[in-house]
Amino acid sequence: MLPSSYAGQACPIARSLEVVGERWTLLILRDAFLGVRRFDDFQARLEVSRAVLTRRLAALVDDGLLRRERYQARPERFEYLPTERALDLWPTILSLARWSEPIAPPEREFVHEACGTIVYAAVRCPHCDVDVDAAHAASRGGPGYPTDESFGPLLVS
Amino acid sequence: MLPSSYAGQACPIARSLEVVGERWTLLILRDAFLGVRRFDDFQARLEVSRAVLTRRLAALVDDGLLRRERYQARPERFEYLPTERALDLWPTILSLARWSEPIAPPEREFVHEACGTIVYAAVRCPHCDVDVDAAHAASRGGPGYPTDESFGPLLVS
Repeated sequence: MLPSSYAGQACPIARSLEVVGERWTLLILRDAFLGVRRFDDFQARLEVSRAVLTRRLAALVDDGLLRRERYQARPERFEYLPTERALDLWPTILSLARWSEPIAPPEREFVHEACGTIVYAAVRCPHCDVDVDAAHAASRGGPGYPTDESFGPLLVS
Repeated sequence: MLPSSYAGQACPIARSLEVVGERWTLLILRDAFLGVRRFDDFQARLEVSRAVLTRRLAALVDDGLLRRERYQARPERFEYLPTERALDLWPTILSLARWSEPIAPPEREFVHEACGTIVYAAVRCPHCDVDVDAAHAASRGGPGYPTDESFGPLLVS
């Protein structure tokens, strides 16, 4: 068995996966991005049991990715809206969508609303104003690991 | 129980998660990006059993994300190198790393090798040459879903 948590991994990627790495979590967020708000609509799209979806939505509320808002008083009914924290996953979700294009043509495309051009996820250098692929990036120790770790190319080939 | 596959989801994000959504897969790829090549080095960093790591590496080779290369003949030993297909996950991995920064300061930062500036994952419009956040994006039917689906804002708020 794999360990059931990534807690032993002192790594910013592992920390994100602690929150969004559970099965279906990113698909629930995908639907929230697409405007799905209500329990029954999430369930119809995801085809999961009510019990599982209830738990998953509650976890996303606890983790600050969805907020629960009452839209009807009698009977009391709630909807789920993505928070700013969820919207920060936009490059992750778009990057995953794009990555599958060699597997099959996408059912859905994402475009810049202002001009209709298809958008894409990229890594950017704000100083040089260019896209930076993995071969042109390097890694170094960050503020959470204040050692004299050397500054080297990211990919040792 | 949740279904064990996302196959019923006609969605480019679900298709990517079929390949990289398994626990630890993205952490193995993270290490491959950082230059880890050999079985024992992966195991030391990930603290998983040899049996599990063997299966996970074999799946990544089958899926075309790692390639296996012999580096020693007697005894025969192999190392694992990320493919171009794996490198295409660079914005996904960087976006996940960045997303955890409000949780804890990162142990590692990624920079543009040419200038040392910290890079970031973003969604880009190549026509307008700007970053496009979720509130300024729209979605529409793509080539895999050739209906007259309407062109609307991504977020129905």
